[in-house]
Amino acid sequence: RSYRVAVVPGDGIGKEVVPEGVRVLEKIAKRHGFTLKLDWYDFSSCDYYLKHGRMMPEDWKEQIGGHDAIFFGAVGWPARVPDHVSLWGSLLLFRRDFDQYVNLRPVKLLPGVPCPLAGRKPGDIDFMVVRENTEGEYSSIGGKMFPGTAREFVVQETVMTRVGIDRVLKYAFELAQRRPKRHLTSATKSNGISITMPYWDERVEEMSKGYPDVRWDKYHIDILTANFVLHPDWFDVVVGSNLFGDILSDLGPACAGTIGIAAAANINPERNYPSVFEPVHGSAPDIAGQGIANPIGQIWSGAMMLDHLGEHEAAGAILTAIERVLAEKTLRTRDLGGNADTVACGKAIAEMI
Amino acid sequence: RSYRVAVVPGDGIGKEVVPEGVRVLEKIAKRHGFTLKLDWYDFSSCDYYLKHGRMMPEDWKEQIGGHDAIFFGAVGWPARVPDHVSLWGSLLLFRRDFDQYVNLRPVKLLPGVPCPLAGRKPGDIDFMVVRENTEGEYSSIGGKMFPGTAREFVVQETVMTRVGIDRVLKYAFELAQRRPKRHLTSATKSNGISITMPYWDERVEEMSKGYPDVRWDKYHIDILTANFVLHPDWFDVVVGSNLFGDILSDLGPACAGTIGIAAAANINPERNYPSVFEPVHGSAPDIAGQGIANPIGQIWSGAMMLDHLGEHEAAGAILTAIERVLAEKTLRTRDLGGNADTVACGKAIAEMI
Ligand SMILES: CC(C)[C@H](C(=O)O)[C@@H](O)C(=O)O
Ligand SMILES: CC(C)[C@H](C(=O)O)[C@@H](O)C(=O)O
Repeated sequence: RSYRVAVVPGDGIGKEVVPEGVRVLEKIAKRHGFTLKLDWYDFSSCDYYLKHGRMMPEDWKEQIGGHDAIFFGAVGWPARVPDHVSLWGSLLLFRRDFDQYVNLRPVKLLPGVPCPLAGRKPGDIDFMVVRENTEGEYSSIGGKMFPGTAREFVVQETVMTRVGIDRVLKYAFELAQRRPKRHLTSATKSNGISITMPYWDERVEEMSKGYPDVRWDKYHIDILTANFVLHPDWFDVVVGSNLFGDILSDLGPACAGTIGIAAAANINPERNYPSVFEPVHGSAPDIAGQGIANPIGQIWSGAMMLDHLGEHEAAGAILTAIERVLAEKTLRTRDLGGNADTVACGKAIAEMI
Repeated sequence: RSYRVAVVPGDGIGKEVVPEGVRVLEKIAKRHGFTLKLDWYDFSSCDYYLKHGRMMPEDWKEQIGGHDAIFFGAVGWPARVPDHVSLWGSLLLFRRDFDQYVNLRPVKLLPGVPCPLAGRKPGDIDFMVVRENTEGEYSSIGGKMFPGTAREFVVQETVMTRVGIDRVLKYAFELAQRRPKRHLTSATKSNGISITMPYWDERVEEMSKGYPDVRWDKYHIDILTANFVLHPDWFDVVVGSNLFGDILSDLGPACAGTIGIAAAANINPERNYPSVFEPVHGSAPDIAGQGIANPIGQIWSGAMMLDHLGEHEAAGAILTAIERVLAEKTLRTRDLGGNADTVACGKAIAEMI
């Protein structure tokens, strides 16, 4: 088995954690007898923007669109390029142009990770956030009127299509079907957001009929965030719109200790395009260049990538190695109370394999 | 001093906790030498809707618009009337038609309240959420196209006006100015929501120039919810759009133990219209009629009402009484590990005054 992977480190700590992810991927490939052919790219970064006036070359789709997967670091350096320019010029473009309509993010309390919630143990928090990743609140439609005057205002459309909602719900229901608890929670706000959100609820209701073996419920986003804190053990698969999924997949990992180790998969389930695997943490300019970033989010994303490529055993082995390293204080990075640097932590995980 | 207050219990546990709020208000009025003239209304409830086919009579504005304040319970009973019908027919209409553009919600860890965050003590969590309350994501503009077909889609506008943003920011900056820490945090999502949110940021930047004595920062809503859990001590005044403020003011109280005791003020700062004071918890149909609801959110809302009316000492005295009752386990309701019922808890607070 052989896979072609585009490696895109991007900005900030992306450049530091991606090499550790690659280190672990190369080790596991050797152990499990498959080949990874890696092509590295320097675009999708603010450095590239400052040199070329755009985040990516015109033929970026040709350059990376033929790969089996994209292993992505992080993008954004707001002091150099406004966030909405850098992100809409790369990451958010991948999601939309490669039709990666599922953003999948595990929320799991691992042994050795200090949990901010009182009395919670590994096993208490273990669920998946499924986020719609192409439409919803992240539309690009809207504008400003009466600029520069007291009457100035802006509008922006939220757009939800039946196709767009149904396909992510299908993914979420099927995921719930494969898990022991078979439980799906839908995030809504149909009491306040009176057009799009009642429609979302309608589609959930309708789609649920195809999955009589899945128990489902819904919460308004406000009380749902409260329940993440008060009752994280209630959840199994949580599905939400682009914005709600974004919020829940930062809040969830925080409840499970830290977003520093959280991983994400931007998936095109039909495999017409490559999927993107990235840590949740972002480029973190404030600690970039110091070699102290935690590489676990990146390494975990590598495991999700292997899972997507069909290398399930290898993916599981990476998770086990992560858990074993987390259990030893000296091998953890500083953000988790250890004293290892990025490279030392990455090497420790590679050695556990 | 004499004040005319419209009392609107609404639905579900609203009918049980409002009388306790009134009990405490009447006691404090006697103690502090002012008069409350209360007028009770049965509209703004699903019962009223089932009888009259609408949530409120046509002349609702005349009936309650002349009062000094509105003391509100809760509205909504989704099994009887869809939420967006009941809420847009009452509570959300008050907010918009009475131009209550500030929704103010204290987040405070009180002694005796079990905190879900490990190691947090009273004093660690003490901030205010200021929510824009009339525009933003809660617009009523939008609709559906190609209904009933596979191409079906819905759109809904988010609308942000300079007037609407600036006035709530002014309130938030001035509130921060009056607090010892003088710190304001703005909730944004300008990296993903590329039109309205960068505009929000622009207005914060601009308005901040008028308040050089206030230190301010901003976080994207996803990481902000994470920081509520990981670093609740970072916050002093947090300002957000209608939706973001809604989320943060459920999440905040959950981090401080329970939304069961949280209070809210829907304020028209110019006093052209009455303001509405309500608990955050809602009508809770699942426990309605059992007499077990916690009345503290309602009573705390009464304190916020007195504050707004200028009775600051009386407001402070209610807070002290609440804290003293919370400190005694037997006087707490079941949701906080006690065994008092709604009436017993309300009476205990009234007696402390
Ligand atoms: C009931 C609902 C419409 C309302 C809101 O979203 O504003 C509530 O959650 C609140 O916070 O007062
Ligand atoms: C950086 C930002 C645009 C992005 C998002 O909101 O999608 C990030 O928060 C994420 O969750 O991947």
